[in-house]
Amino acid sequence: LKPPGSLAHSISDGHETRVRHTYGRNYRDVMRGFRGDFAAAPDLVASPASDAEISDVLDWASRAKVAVVPFGGGTSVVGGIEAEVDDRYQGVLSLDLGRLDRVIEVERSSLSARIQAGATGPMLETQLAEHGFTLRHFPQSFEFSTLGGWLATRAGGHFATVYTHIDDLTQSIRAITPRGPWESRRLPGSGAGPSPDRWMLGSEGIFGVITEAWMRVRPRPQFRVTATAHFANFERAVQSVRALSQSGLYPSNCRLLDKREAALNGVAMDGTHVLIVAFESADHPLQPWMERALELVADHGGVCPKGPRYRERGERGDAEDGAGAWRDAFIDAPYLLNVMASMGVIVDTFETACTWDRFEELHRGVIAAVRDVMKETCGAGFISCRFTHVYPDGPAPYFTFVAPGRFGAEIDQWMTIKKAASDAVIAHGGTITHHHAVGRVHRPWYERQRPGPFGDALQAVKRALDPGGVMNPGVLVDPDA
Amino acid sequence: LKPPGSLAHSISDGHETRVRHTYGRNYRDVMRGFRGDFAAAPDLVASPASDAEISDVLDWASRAKVAVVPFGGGTSVVGGIEAEVDDRYQGVLSLDLGRLDRVIEVERSSLSARIQAGATGPMLETQLAEHGFTLRHFPQSFEFSTLGGWLATRAGGHFATVYTHIDDLTQSIRAITPRGPWESRRLPGSGAGPSPDRWMLGSEGIFGVITEAWMRVRPRPQFRVTATAHFANFERAVQSVRALSQSGLYPSNCRLLDKREAALNGVAMDGTHVLIVAFESADHPLQPWMERALELVADHGGVCPKGPRYRERGERGDAEDGAGAWRDAFIDAPYLLNVMASMGVIVDTFETACTWDRFEELHRGVIAAVRDVMKETCGAGFISCRFTHVYPDGPAPYFTFVAPGRFGAEIDQWMTIKKAASDAVIAHGGTITHHHAVGRVHRPWYERQRPGPFGDALQAVKRALDPGGVMNPGVLVDPDA
Repeated sequence: LKPPGSLAHSISDGHETRVRHTYGRNYRDVMRGFRGDFAAAPDLVASPASDAEISDVLDWASRAKVAVVPFGGGTSVVGGIEAEVDDRYQGVLSLDLGRLDRVIEVERSSLSARIQAGATGPMLETQLAEHGFTLRHFPQSFEFSTLGGWLATRAGGHFATVYTHIDDLTQSIRAITPRGPWESRRLPGSGAGPSPDRWMLGSEGIFGVITEAWMRVRPRPQFRVTATAHFANFERAVQSVRALSQSGLYPSNCRLLDKREAALNGVAMDGTHVLIVAFESADHPLQPWMERALELVADHGGVCPKGPRYRERGERGDAEDGAGAWRDAFIDAPYLLNVMASMGVIVDTFETACTWDRFEELHRGVIAAVRDVMKETCGAGFISCRFTHVYPDGPAPYFTFVAPGRFGAEIDQWMTIKKAASDAVIAHGGTITHHHAVGRVHRPWYERQRPGPFGDALQAVKRALDPGGVMNPGVLVDPDA
Repeated sequence: LKPPGSLAHSISDGHETRVRHTYGRNYRDVMRGFRGDFAAAPDLVASPASDAEISDVLDWASRAKVAVVPFGGGTSVVGGIEAEVDDRYQGVLSLDLGRLDRVIEVERSSLSARIQAGATGPMLETQLAEHGFTLRHFPQSFEFSTLGGWLATRAGGHFATVYTHIDDLTQSIRAITPRGPWESRRLPGSGAGPSPDRWMLGSEGIFGVITEAWMRVRPRPQFRVTATAHFANFERAVQSVRALSQSGLYPSNCRLLDKREAALNGVAMDGTHVLIVAFESADHPLQPWMERALELVADHGGVCPKGPRYRERGERGDAEDGAGAWRDAFIDAPYLLNVMASMGVIVDTFETACTWDRFEELHRGVIAAVRDVMKETCGAGFISCRFTHVYPDGPAPYFTFVAPGRFGAEIDQWMTIKKAASDAVIAHGGTITHHHAVGRVHRPWYERQRPGPFGDALQAVKRALDPGGVMNPGVLVDPDA
């Protein structure tokens, strides 16, 4: 597969580049990498430096019937960047946004910044910090993942309540579709038809390539407070989170770790379930907020032996308290996956959201299903649960499982566990993903979850914007004939 | 035009029924009503009692090429319920949801209620009150408008911050499309593909008929506080609202009335601009919130001579304070339009939203454009401005204009003013509507505002879900051939 000469300067077919653009970061991806299996490598990798170059690439790919896979940080855990194409396609091109990594413009009065899609978390935060701002969107993949990837996959962020998804921080989006540029107006809110941004958010590259966005940023917080509460009883801990989520206090953090999760992360080794509650503000001291939150925690049997810890200005948290230990473990976890996988341990996470009335049954059902399948498939296994985000109408539970792998069979074992977990999530009223996206891995369950005619609607929009059917085929909907 | 016998029991061609389903409630609608001009009356009015009956109606209409206009409360101010069809259609059927007016189910732990689309504001609030809950969505049309209408038009509600649109209160939606039922899963949040609810919200009946939704309700507030602040200087008042919107305090009310608006509503006759700030909670007393809000108000020169007024439990506000006067005027305003229109006065409102950096120019530009056109067209005129909702990145300004009409020419005069106002809003970076919807009146400006390929996307979805092209033709996109 050869690109035309006019595009050659930004397209490579180098071996190492292709290998680096083959997989995301889930267990199966890591294992295939260890095994040196890069069968799914793209034929070409493009590194365009402008929207115009992206248009040219899409024009050529549409004409030549080459699948285009937008590539941000390569941290997908759902097969979002790995094209599986049949012989209707001439090949696969990975479109790496890495050269579009700038904060182009900051508008202070509206707390807005225009940011290119290829900027990673640290890159955009460093540039925003020069203006005294922060996006405060810290997914676990923060170090490598990009703004464009966050938007395309509806990433979950720092805030446990209210502004949970990147969606909520988005003011306008610019994308290049095969049919031309798509650019929404910078608006704080609108009621003019369905929101075009909400049609693009979560589209996972099937309509076009997001190239930049105006994002809602904020001053760095000046006031912070964190408290770590312990519960002997998981159900009561859940009830305290429900009360907090419905209180209108809007904590910035409200993460419940069950006793296994707390032990796994070194937060509590005494068999208690741990709730980390935090507030932050650039505007006001937070005593009244935290005091009421701790009343709600105490009402449900939570104890907070060290009390709340208030910090002002840049003061950093203490790694010895629960929140500090949690933060460090959170950042280390993806590295740990690689290490454990290399030791023959199957380890992965999955997440969902459900309404409060379904939670108890979902929690019990999912844990039972995953324990059963691990026992059957691997002989044993461990599963823990935490909440990453909470809403007045329900939590977003996040599960971690660890099981011994059998040499050579690990990927099949992982897929068997993943399937059982996904079946249980859907059967118990959850969503197949709260913030990990759909990609290729979650698609069978996504199809069971979405409204029937919505699949037709997605397919229709794809046909309208991508008549050649080249954009990330196989994600969300079937590739067109 | 005759419906088949199987549908006859729920379809009427009675004169009065057709007249009542002809127009919405904008100035032009009211004037045409006064003149006895009901040329746009639908041929038939259906009053289905179930989703199955709606399916049957859509099946027949699709086969017979009859335009179907979903009808909730008939309060559209943008021509949303008035079908203009050409001879490709056999006629027009107004589909009145009025018989679907129940709160079907209340789920306490998730603060959720399943509500039929035809329930008006008072109907659903009365039913929710039996369970101790409230939706707290109070558009100005509350008395007559319906849940389905709110969802289809992305109505703006009670809360000035965070949960501003009905979108934010929506957990899942059920609709009947010509291609079958569309029902999303009850979820507090999700990242599984683009949000199907956000595709349906704002679709204004062009994809199908929304028949019910699970909505996020809440306990009635137990703590309330309101303060009325006065400003000599409008720009400083705007700055205080900006500070409040960016403070993270999330006031439930944050309505700025300029001096003309304050006088028009009987809130202040002394030439001051008035800001009404309120907080409410079912969980906690609100002193710290209001105290910080009043510091921000004072920082920008606002004075609050009466201080904040705290209320607990069901205690009602005092009609003598600014907030009370405002509330009463807000509820009376639509009636006043009718009275003034009958006296030969042209009176209407329009609204938008823009980022803070564009506001000063938009405000000046819109007011100048409307004053100029009123002077030219009517000889004189009055225009005032208030904020209905505010965001960290910008306000939603709402304008009221009043001008003397010339007998017989009022509708042309109104259209000339409306056009100048809309041109100015779009030229200065606003949205053609923050919460009044697009309908047929706003469509030319809506097309200038939305991303180019988004029009193609809407058209494609319409074709997929409504292959007969019968759903509310002329709204948002062109009717298909």
